[in-house]
Amino acid sequence: MDKILRIDMGAEGGPKAKETGLDAYSGLGGRALTSSIVAGEVPPLCHPLGAENKLVISPGLLSGTGAAMSGRISIGCKSPLTGGIKESNSGGQAAQVLARLGYAAIVLEGKPPGDSLYKVFINKDGVKIEAAASLRMLPNYDLIDKMKEQYGDKIACISIGPAGEMKLSAASIACTDPELRPTRHAGRGGVGAVMGAKGVKVIVLDDTGLKARPPKDLEKFRAANKIFVAGLSSHPVTGQALPAYGTNVLTNIVNEAGAYPAYNFKDGQFPGASKISGETFAELETQRGGNPTHHCHRGCVIRCSGIFNDKNGKFLTKQPEYETVWAHGAHCGIDDPDAIAMLDFLDDNYGVDTIDMGVAIGLAMQAGVAKFGDAEAAINLVKEVGKGTPLGRILGSGAAITGRVFGVENVPVVKGQALPAYDPRAVQGIGVTYATSPMGGDHTAGYSIATNILKSGGYVDPLKPEGQVELSRNLQIATAAIDSTGMCLFIAFAVLDQPETFQALIDLLNSFYGLELNAGSVTDLGKKVLTVEREFNKKAGFTKEHDRLPRYFYTEPVAPHNITFMVKDEEMDKLFDW
Amino acid sequence: MDKILRIDMGAEGGPKAKETGLDAYSGLGGRALTSSIVAGEVPPLCHPLGAENKLVISPGLLSGTGAAMSGRISIGCKSPLTGGIKESNSGGQAAQVLARLGYAAIVLEGKPPGDSLYKVFINKDGVKIEAAASLRMLPNYDLIDKMKEQYGDKIACISIGPAGEMKLSAASIACTDPELRPTRHAGRGGVGAVMGAKGVKVIVLDDTGLKARPPKDLEKFRAANKIFVAGLSSHPVTGQALPAYGTNVLTNIVNEAGAYPAYNFKDGQFPGASKISGETFAELETQRGGNPTHHCHRGCVIRCSGIFNDKNGKFLTKQPEYETVWAHGAHCGIDDPDAIAMLDFLDDNYGVDTIDMGVAIGLAMQAGVAKFGDAEAAINLVKEVGKGTPLGRILGSGAAITGRVFGVENVPVVKGQALPAYDPRAVQGIGVTYATSPMGGDHTAGYSIATNILKSGGYVDPLKPEGQVELSRNLQIATAAIDSTGMCLFIAFAVLDQPETFQALIDLLNSFYGLELNAGSVTDLGKKVLTVEREFNKKAGFTKEHDRLPRYFYTEPVAPHNITFMVKDEEMDKLFDW
Repeated sequence: MDKILRIDMGAEGGPKAKETGLDAYSGLGGRALTSSIVAGEVPPLCHPLGAENKLVISPGLLSGTGAAMSGRISIGCKSPLTGGIKESNSGGQAAQVLARLGYAAIVLEGKPPGDSLYKVFINKDGVKIEAAASLRMLPNYDLIDKMKEQYGDKIACISIGPAGEMKLSAASIACTDPELRPTRHAGRGGVGAVMGAKGVKVIVLDDTGLKARPPKDLEKFRAANKIFVAGLSSHPVTGQALPAYGTNVLTNIVNEAGAYPAYNFKDGQFPGASKISGETFAELETQRGGNPTHHCHRGCVIRCSGIFNDKNGKFLTKQPEYETVWAHGAHCGIDDPDAIAMLDFLDDNYGVDTIDMGVAIGLAMQAGVAKFGDAEAAINLVKEVGKGTPLGRILGSGAAITGRVFGVENVPVVKGQALPAYDPRAVQGIGVTYATSPMGGDHTAGYSIATNILKSGGYVDPLKPEGQVELSRNLQIATAAIDSTGMCLFIAFAVLDQPETFQALIDLLNSFYGLELNAGSVTDLGKKVLTVEREFNKKAGFTKEHDRLPRYFYTEPVAPHNITFMVKDEEMDKLFDW
Repeated sequence: MDKILRIDMGAEGGPKAKETGLDAYSGLGGRALTSSIVAGEVPPLCHPLGAENKLVISPGLLSGTGAAMSGRISIGCKSPLTGGIKESNSGGQAAQVLARLGYAAIVLEGKPPGDSLYKVFINKDGVKIEAAASLRMLPNYDLIDKMKEQYGDKIACISIGPAGEMKLSAASIACTDPELRPTRHAGRGGVGAVMGAKGVKVIVLDDTGLKARPPKDLEKFRAANKIFVAGLSSHPVTGQALPAYGTNVLTNIVNEAGAYPAYNFKDGQFPGASKISGETFAELETQRGGNPTHHCHRGCVIRCSGIFNDKNGKFLTKQPEYETVWAHGAHCGIDDPDAIAMLDFLDDNYGVDTIDMGVAIGLAMQAGVAKFGDAEAAINLVKEVGKGTPLGRILGSGAAITGRVFGVENVPVVKGQALPAYDPRAVQGIGVTYATSPMGGDHTAGYSIATNILKSGGYVDPLKPEGQVELSRNLQIATAAIDSTGMCLFIAFAVLDQPETFQALIDLLNSFYGLELNAGSVTDLGKKVLTVEREFNKKAGFTKEHDRLPRYFYTEPVAPHNITFMVKDEEMDKLFDW
């Protein structure tokens, strides 16, 4: 993993690939690498769909090794959704396979003429780029079926659906899971539109004949991994709750906390929550021969993903994630698990972010395009995206555009990106993250829910403004570092609560690379990543005024706590002063 | 004109009107007043469609007097299109009538519940606000017919069409002309959407029984007006070109200069230019019993407006303005005057900005929604706006949204507002104005064409970067001042070239108000207005990075001069340093 594959999609005579060393980017992986390349090489005021933008796909520092949980991939660019820098993170097999192939990053550069469409195939023998007009507008599932026919089932694919080809601002990039289904997505920020603008439909990765990356000190590495895995298994969140119910274990918890936004953030609790909870989904999945406990990539020991079968016991989609269930569920007043699973499938198939898509549908409902609670209408609305109708294009452009086009006032977005499944008034810490993250409205960027609600890493009262900035700061720093390792963010629960698991993570890095990192180095890396991202955003025109929630969160209280967002602007403006 | 009418549209029990003095706003009118009220009273981060935004409608300092050319009205708010402060300026009768009624401004505040719709009637006896559900979704022409039936033909109306009611970001506010047709529009910035959000369909003004506002020194005032009028009559632009051909006299001139953007700014000349020139339109208008020389408001002596009849000699629309002809014409590859006139009528009738609408259609054409040059398709696209279909809503949301939804890269907007009919590469001075005006992409804010092309007020080579910032600075200052007087901006040609006409303008103000202004005072007023506007925008999150043209103007040369925009960022950043 000491080389970068750069493909100039706009080269004369067709796309040209070349390999370079890591050079200035040496020692970086995942988000640290994608953000450094984007910040270093992309003009901040360029058009996100233009030749000057770059799409950077990077496994983490530990991806492709024997380290547990190391299968996350970072996809970075200037975002068509936010206009700022973006790192969108996905599970699935791609990180492990790409890392074994030896690439620290694939960088798609330039732009082909017209609407040329290409397929990229990479294996141990090298890189092949071929015109792929026959794949045009294929949904992800059909596309992957074709790739399987051609390349067999030992591959991993990174692909876009019709939404990416249409360059819609909420288009995602799909990564296949171990069963070669396009279920894991770099959903946020419209990264799929950038891949579409580069004219790349799919990147097929085949690591046949290649082994796991060898650590410098194998023995220490194995020992660290053992402690690391034991820590994850012994923590109640990563060892019990997530494997049993997946991320959707949160529905009942967050609803109980009064922080579960219903009907476009009108309420903090949803009457139908129990009907779409993780517990309900898990039961349904088991009944129908699906599986509530499944790994999304090789080496995952938490296994929070799952398999959702339809009423006939036939695979429909992955177990929908908590935020997906919320966006298509409570936010739209829908409490039908089968409808939500269908919406999840359609999103994955067309290649759109489930969060921005669900929030957009709720906004359309608020504007009267459909009624809250009408699941059939919601399904038809997502199908419009697949058809590429004007209505589908609006919705597929995400929540901010949908709110604008339909004249809605209360539009839950920050920096143009839809807020996820936690009301920032009832969990003030997540409000700080939404407001200040360089990524725009994003829960993963500094997941205060861990501490505000789940009491991991201490406890900060979610209903009070005190302590939230510090909490979000620490979590944003830690997250930026973790997102650079290729580690799944869910390790954070154990890492926050168990000093030995945190040490094991550091030991994994040290034994693999022969380094001498400590806790301070991890913090430094996180700060460095955030600084680079903030610098890019500043040059792209972002100011402290963009580090705010939409006005109504400050003026309209939400039940049941009847409070507004109370963290002071001046305090938030100091979040990145370290 | 010493009082402000404030209507709280969100008051309990229905809208409540109250009159206040000018107080802190004493001495201000037009743009100076709208921008001061918006900057002083509207939270910069509020939602433009929310209760906290205010719509300020203000005649100029000399409106309602006997001064020639004083019938321009300023309409201000936080713009739904740009997110910044907005002053959108219109001709028509409203300024004169509102000023005679004694109001320096009408301020629409708050927001009614649900989709309530109201009509406001103001005459010498006071203000009546009535529910007006029966007017819902009426196009402007039908609406005004109804108002005539009810109130007779001595009124002036300020109204919105369906686009404003739908709160579309490119919705305009119509002002009736002397024949009580809704042909004059505050088109830019989506002010119509704010009026729609306030639930006001129409403001009917009746100045029956009221006289022109009396000057402090009648004799001096009359003398100044005489010199002023003589100056306008003797200048070749205001005395000959504009009355003969209207603003569309520019088509041949700007096309000849290679600065007439065709096919979405792909080229600097349009093969069909002569077919849609002012000369062609004037001939057609005369042939069909229309009129190429008409005044848009009482007291206009330039008479650049006109009457366009259809093939059967029946009134279709006003003589389309140069920017309208360009946006619906060259920008879309259309060279049919009748089609352009029909598009102008439809825009006025539904209430959308002809510039943002035309540019949006060109972008849709570039995206393949219709073919360049297909006039029938263009007409059908505008009709979609009237129907409120998803496609119509996209287009009616303006060029920036349309470009985004259809995944177009080259989108000619600054601060979300469409660039008008002058290529900033071939007229570098107007590029500076587009980039830096607090209004977003706007030619009127600092009309460098006057000097770069028409050689009014000296000459600055349009193809070179030198001198453009100073030119734009001086014009932006002068414009902000003129927009505060209620004077038509076209007086600038004579004012720039004839010291005695400039002095006459100052004498009009001095003799009317008993002041002792001089050239310096005018400059000071302009600077003050711009400063207030820039301050608001800064608090709304605008930075120097927003004072830039879209990237492609810096990287893609345009024929026939084959040059890019070359004015340095650092130089533009000093424009407001005075």
